Amino acid sequence: MQETAERLRNGGKRIGLIPTMGFLHDGHLSLVRRAREHSVDCIVMSLFVNPTQFSPDEDFHRYPRDFERDKNLASGAGVDILFFPSLEEIYPKRFLTAVSVDTITTVLEGKIRPTHFRGVTTIVAKLFHLTKPHVAVFGQKDAQQAVVIQQMVRDLNFDTQIIVAPIVREADGLAMSSRNVYLSPEERNESTVLYRSLCLAQQLIAAGERDSETVRTAMNNLIAQMPHTQIDYISPADALTLEDRPLLETGNRILISLAVRFTATRLIDNCLLTI
Amino acid sequence: MQETAERLRNGGKRIGLIPTMGFLHDGHLSLVRRAREHSVDCIVMSLFVNPTQFSPDEDFHRYPRDFERDKNLASGAGVDILFFPSLEEIYPKRFLTAVSVDTITTVLEGKIRPTHFRGVTTIVAKLFHLTKPHVAVFGQKDAQQAVVIQQMVRDLNFDTQIIVAPIVREADGLAMSSRNVYLSPEERNESTVLYRSLCLAQQLIAAGERDSETVRTAMNNLIAQMPHTQIDYISPADALTLEDRPLLETGNRILISLAVRFTATRLIDNCLLTI
Repeated sequence: MQETAERLRNGGKRIGLIPTMGFLHDGHLSLVRRAREHSVDCIVMSLFVNPTQFSPDEDFHRYPRDFERDKNLASGAGVDILFFPSLEEIYPKRFLTAVSVDTITTVLEGKIRPTHFRGVTTIVAKLFHLTKPHVAVFGQKDAQQAVVIQQMVRDLNFDTQIIVAPIVREADGLAMSSRNVYLSPEERNESTVLYRSLCLAQQLIAAGERDSETVRTAMNNLIAQMPHTQIDYISPADALTLEDRPLLETGNRILISLAVRFTATRLIDNCLLTI
Repeated sequence: MQETAERLRNGGKRIGLIPTMGFLHDGHLSLVRRAREHSVDCIVMSLFVNPTQFSPDEDFHRYPRDFERDKNLASGAGVDILFFPSLEEIYPKRFLTAVSVDTITTVLEGKIRPTHFRGVTTIVAKLFHLTKPHVAVFGQKDAQQAVVIQQMVRDLNFDTQIIVAPIVREADGLAMSSRNVYLSPEERNESTVLYRSLCLAQQLIAAGERDSETVRTAMNNLIAQMPHTQIDYISPADALTLEDRPLLETGNRILISLAVRFTATRLIDNCLLTI
């Protein structure tokens, strides 16, 4: 992969990387279209279920996988190179190195999943070195991940432009996610409440509400009506520093993010807005 | 720097990087010659006294600096690009990212300087991204640093070949170091004991000694004869894992390293040998 990437670059080609854990859905495929908009000549999609971003009690082993389906979807979407390294290639014996980002990884997802982002930044650094992308596209669905990756790229001077593509939703508003297949029909039905709670927040703010706690409480009450939900967090925060914003002031760029469990399935969603 | 490096690479040129903290001596200049041997077209020398690899009680502020002299020496040695970024360029506000290597950074130098290698690996990762070297040359003087950098390069898949160049010594055996200027005339005189202790170790091993503790004690006794010395460590260890080797067995690749303080000046030295 690295030799191919180097050869492409030496031939004047621009490389676009789409890092994925596979089990592709329209969200992933929209990232391919987004890459094409940045005059990329060769689109590399990586497919690697990265164990180090799962904690021991999470779903690494049961994470959905379907290589043949992914291969067809990727090829149909115009992916030029599907890069699917083995676990042993990525993490050989005596693997000792990590890339970590401080502060913005200890809130929201990072508070509940303390080793998650260290796993993400380490694998993304490796994928960047292996595929040498001019452009890499990440989904806004994983909002905190996008912020963390951009911080890492800035701090470590990676020469890769990061594109964050908008969330792709099902017709009823549920954000697309490989984990949606875990939902029971009943949970799937209830799960639309996540998007509805984000819409409610935007309506309240559009109507002049500036108190974060009021927004959060309204979202919480809506979600809690669903019997199978258990809320991990609902957070209106600064979109860059991810710090709590008790007061939503004019000009603020705000990320409202949430994580909700439906029995064993944990879903996240978010929206970005400028007050 | 990054744009220049990219332009050079696109033009088919091979880049060699020599990372330094300046106050150049013949040891540094030997690294330039070593880079040339690896068919490098453009030699970049970076000159940056990196604060994050010093602990608060160390000599960051009094570390010797002489930019004009360095510039002349580098240019005389055939350096094509001298890269001397400012502190603010390298560590802008809200810098949050680190590259760290586990286990091999917690022994020897890392035991005494617990934040040192994290500072080193982070700055080297940044320099690699900024200068895009095909080859980077480090000195064997900082033996543990060389091992740590090679581990980082392997683990994170940097596409840079690491060359480790032999120690350059003064006529009386003292390993060249920017910190040698700190030594009083008396300490300078005593400092040759470091190299003599390494020679003694090699003689003992050549004569058949296989017990690490015996070798260490002999070195210790020789160094301790000097009134201004205080020994931090003397360590015969595995050259790759840096683990203690109580028994020196045939075929083992051994790094004998030591750190000794002369009043406020801390010197290190080492030798590599195959049993």
